[in-house]
Amino acid sequence: MNEKYKILETFDNQYPDRDYLITHVQPEFTSVCPKTGNPDFGKITIEYIPDKKCVELKSLKYYFNSFRNDGIFYESVVNFILDDLVKVLQPRYLKVTGEFNPRGGMYSVVVVEYPYKKS
Amino acid sequence: MNEKYKILETFDNQYPDRDYLITHVQPEFTSVCPKTGNPDFGKITIEYIPDKKCVELKSLKYYFNSFRNDGIFYESVVNFILDDLVKVLQPRYLKVTGEFNPRGGMYSVVVVEYPYKKS
Amino acid sequence: MNEKYKILETFDNQYPDRDYLITHVQPEFTSVCPKTGNPDFGKITIEYIPDKKCVELKSLKYYFNSFRNDGIFYESVVNFILDDLVKVLQPRYLKVTGEFNPRGGMYSVVVVEYPYKKS
Amino acid sequence: MNEKYKILETFDNQYPDRDYLITHVQPEFTSVCPKTGNPDFGKITIEYIPDKKCVELKSLKYYFNSFRNDGIFYESVVNFILDDLVKVLQPRYLKVTGEFNPRGGMYSVVVVEYPYKKS
Amino acid sequence: MNEKYKILETFDNQYPDRDYLITHVQPEFTSVCPKTGNPDFGKITIEYIPDKKCVELKSLKYYFNSFRNDGIFYESVVNFILDDLVKVLQPRYLKVTGEFNPRGGMYSVVVVEYPYKKS
Amino acid sequence: MNEKYKILETFDNQYPDRDYLITHVQPEFTSVCPKTGNPDFGKITIEYIPDKKCVELKSLKYYFNSFRNDGIFYESVVNFILDDLVKVLQPRYLKVTGEFNPRGGMYSVVVVEYPYKKS
Amino acid sequence: MNEKYKILETFDNQYPDRDYLITHVQPEFTSVCPKTGNPDFGKITIEYIPDKKCVELKSLKYYFNSFRNDGIFYESVVNFILDDLVKVLQPRYLKVTGEFNPRGGMYSVVVVEYPYKKS
Amino acid sequence: MNEKYKILETFDNQYPDRDYLITHVQPEFTSVCPKTGNPDFGKITIEYIPDKKCVELKSLKYYFNSFRNDGIFYESVVNFILDDLVKVLQPRYLKVTGEFNPRGGMYSVVVVEYPYKKS
Amino acid sequence: MNEKYKILETFDNQYPDRDYLITHVQPEFTSVCPKTGNPDFGKITIEYIPDKKCVELKSLKYYFNSFRNDGIFYESVVNFILDDLVKVLQPRYLKVTGEFNPRGGMYSVVVVEYPYKKS
Amino acid sequence: MNEKYKILETFDNQYPDRDYLITHVQPEFTSVCPKTGNPDFGKITIEYIPDKKCVELKSLKYYFNSFRNDGIFYESVVNFILDDLVKVLQPRYLKVTGEFNPRGGMYSVVVVEYPYKKS
Repeated sequence: MNEKYKILETFDNQYPDRDYLITHVQPEFTSVCPKTGNPDFGKITIEYIPDKKCVELKSLKYYFNSFRNDGIFYESVVNFILDDLVKVLQPRYLKVTGEFNPRGGMYSVVVVEYPYKKS
Repeated sequence: MNEKYKILETFDNQYPDRDYLITHVQPEFTSVCPKTGNPDFGKITIEYIPDKKCVELKSLKYYFNSFRNDGIFYESVVNFILDDLVKVLQPRYLKVTGEFNPRGGMYSVVVVEYPYKKS
Repeated sequence: MNEKYKILETFDNQYPDRDYLITHVQPEFTSVCPKTGNPDFGKITIEYIPDKKCVELKSLKYYFNSFRNDGIFYESVVNFILDDLVKVLQPRYLKVTGEFNPRGGMYSVVVVEYPYKKS
Repeated sequence: MNEKYKILETFDNQYPDRDYLITHVQPEFTSVCPKTGNPDFGKITIEYIPDKKCVELKSLKYYFNSFRNDGIFYESVVNFILDDLVKVLQPRYLKVTGEFNPRGGMYSVVVVEYPYKKS
Repeated sequence: MNEKYKILETFDNQYPDRDYLITHVQPEFTSVCPKTGNPDFGKITIEYIPDKKCVELKSLKYYFNSFRNDGIFYESVVNFILDDLVKVLQPRYLKVTGEFNPRGGMYSVVVVEYPYKKS
Repeated sequence: MNEKYKILETFDNQYPDRDYLITHVQPEFTSVCPKTGNPDFGKITIEYIPDKKCVELKSLKYYFNSFRNDGIFYESVVNFILDDLVKVLQPRYLKVTGEFNPRGGMYSVVVVEYPYKKS
Repeated sequence: MNEKYKILETFDNQYPDRDYLITHVQPEFTSVCPKTGNPDFGKITIEYIPDKKCVELKSLKYYFNSFRNDGIFYESVVNFILDDLVKVLQPRYLKVTGEFNPRGGMYSVVVVEYPYKKS
Repeated sequence: MNEKYKILETFDNQYPDRDYLITHVQPEFTSVCPKTGNPDFGKITIEYIPDKKCVELKSLKYYFNSFRNDGIFYESVVNFILDDLVKVLQPRYLKVTGEFNPRGGMYSVVVVEYPYKKS
Repeated sequence: MNEKYKILETFDNQYPDRDYLITHVQPEFTSVCPKTGNPDFGKITIEYIPDKKCVELKSLKYYFNSFRNDGIFYESVVNFILDDLVKVLQPRYLKVTGEFNPRGGMYSVVVVEYPYKKS
Repeated sequence: MNEKYKILETFDNQYPDRDYLITHVQPEFTSVCPKTGNPDFGKITIEYIPDKKCVELKSLKYYFNSFRNDGIFYESVVNFILDDLVKVLQPRYLKVTGEFNPRGGMYSVVVVEYPYKKS
């Protein structure tokens, strides 16, 4: 899984002189529970302020798709995506939210932030 | 596309002595994806504090309509509209939000602000 | 239209020693577009902290009804109501919000505030 | 109506060492309009941080029921309840919100706060 | 009931270098009213910033299930869970919210926080 | 309670040559539980095809208000209203639906019909 | 009011060989209560199967607008519109539904049908 | 479990001359999964046309509560309740619907009817 | 516009021995008002029982896109699509529904059916 | 894929003397588009009247999971599931509904029925 970030493509931010917020929401995220082997489902939300680069939408979709058959915990999904996107985009700010469907009646949300820093 | 702002008409702000917030929402925005040529759909929201001028509603509609057959990315739509409205209105504050319909299961939101400054 | 505020009646605030917030919402506001002569529809919200006086509910309804056949722009409706209510109530704080129904697919919101001041 | 607060019963706060927020919502509040004699309906929300005492739930219900045939204005309902609960609970913080059903198309909300003070 | 916390299992936080927020929601919480013996129903929400440990999801479910036949007041449920989770997780921050179903037309919410402290 | 129907006033049906359906909904119905003395709340819906007479709206409101302090079961409320309206209107068709708020977590609906007959 | 139907314009049905259903909904209908002089608000829905003619949309809007300052009862509004549309369109089928906003807490719906007949 | 129906109490139907429909909804039903021992949650709806007897509401609540610690499948819950209510009420018609909360992402509904027969 | 149906592609129905219903919904339909030149927006729903052929999804999208700059009335859009799909699919049953966005406050729905016939 | 039905397990219907309806809904169905290789997402609903056998819930979940990496069209998914369930359950009635998420703005529903027959 360590090379997954290579799926992500970028394009040049056309408006680098101002801060603005880009949000991408994938309501069809799925991976596999590492304990039971059953599929997990959830919604992943990416919010970021770009610096020099923006993430290309189609490659982001393929990146999310690549988790489809991985065994990974909720807490790790969200932190892992944050690390990959920070590596690839070096953004001014980034936040990842994972909202996961109920299991055993109970559902979970995990939120991680990369704090604002002006380049 | 550089002359698009000329579609926008203005009228004099009748209450220039106070700050107040005007919001216009166009839930029927459509343009064309520059990569695939397929139509994109979304909702554009304009929020601003007028200084000397307000934007005339019908001309704003025609301005939005003018994107109908343009090939343009989400990030550019929102920044482009901000630049045009700032040029024409010279407002005290302005914010543009674009919420775009799902493509490949994933949807996007882009938000740009022109920061508050009292004239 | 300049004498419209005379419709508004008041009663003495029974709890002048404390600040508290009163909200009245009229979801059935209607006036006439000054350009086309067609009816406009919207929702007007009044929020205020009373000082010595509260607005009487029935008179407020009649005040809103009095706009029924007036030709007036969205921006003016909201500022006009603010001015009248401030004149009649001399409140500690007052805010008027007008949310107007879609025209040509697009809808608008106008918000005006009278800033807090303790008498 | 001055003795209505005697209906309210209390029990000892089992966790007085920490601040925590208790909310009780009565969506079935009804009283009588003092002008027309017609019934009024609304939702009353109590939010408070207890100090030494908590209000007993059943007695709070009976307290709300006791307004059923009283003629009383919206603004007074909410302030009256605040005064009674402060007298009986001596809480660290208390807020009362009354949301009243539409009359003549228009509806109202009244909010009163007893500001935070640590005993 | 004093040993209930022993049901809770933990695993090592894989990302201890950053603060991030984990939320678990149990909309199927049930206990018994200590006064009437009737069942109570509600939704319990846990929000926390982990330090060295995260709570294991399945054990959390069993922990919630263990209240099924306990007679316990709303205010106590929420404070009790806070104390147990703080003891077991020693988190940087923790908040417990209990939203309980209507009884006699009235419903209640109780919120308790363990304030942020960096280890 | 036997004379309650006298509150109801009628006016002549202006379109007796055709069948058409009139619905009146009172979402603010309240009466008293005959067992506990506690207030009950619910929504009453009247649907009817008029013959010679229509029920006057304001008198219908007063008729509903008259149950405010009556001790009466859900099943009886709905059947009682049906009998009174049939007596006063002699309609071609009439249906009464009572939807009552939760008590002890459980809520109830009662529906009674007076079958269609052309005069 | 007897000449109101003259506002309605028609155009030729381009598909007279088949039955199909056209619905027009006006959620911004307003007239005046003939008893109190207060404005009434509601939603009017027209459903019809055209024969030789369809109603022109803009003229239908003006037709609805023409009720703005008329004093007329709910039951009459709906029957009156049915009669006018039947006169002008001679449709194969037509149904008019009026859903009116709450007055005194109670709201009303009136439904009239012109039964199906093939020309 | 065979004697559970004895919890149910009845009262005489006051309107036996007409058919009418009574619905009781318990959104707080809970039992135990016979395979895993984990709690199940769901909503049970009873719809019936009474003959000589109606079910008393409080006893119905206690009857539902009695399943709290029983291990029983969804299909059996609904059929079992139907059999008990038919035995006790001998109704003209009865229908039981069980809507159960998601388990493993999947949720279930079971519906059983006792067909209409006039006594 | 007469050759538009050539955009539609088909594939062989794999289950011709049974009747089953296929629904495709395009919530992003847009064309142009032939009177004003302004864009119209709406949702088109296709429901059909296939005989020998099914419509290919991507070609259906391109077919809908082809209306983007056509001036055409609501009533014609829906009938036109029905005729094209019947020509290409020769289905056992087909229904087209067009729900169009508000213009001047009023919105419209048009429904056309091709009646069931077994081949 | 031909042996997939072997995943399905059954248990004896305990109430074979009456017809009753069992519904299972899987909102987390996912398979792969055979043309693009991209994942598809949707909701599958099974409704059936059992004869001698009921489908075991956990095995049904595993059956749905088994489509996770299969390339298969919407129309085939739904017909395929119908055939497998009919083979395994020999039910009195069975219906399968597939509601699939938007692709290119457009979404689809496919419904197949196995008609009622009493054994």
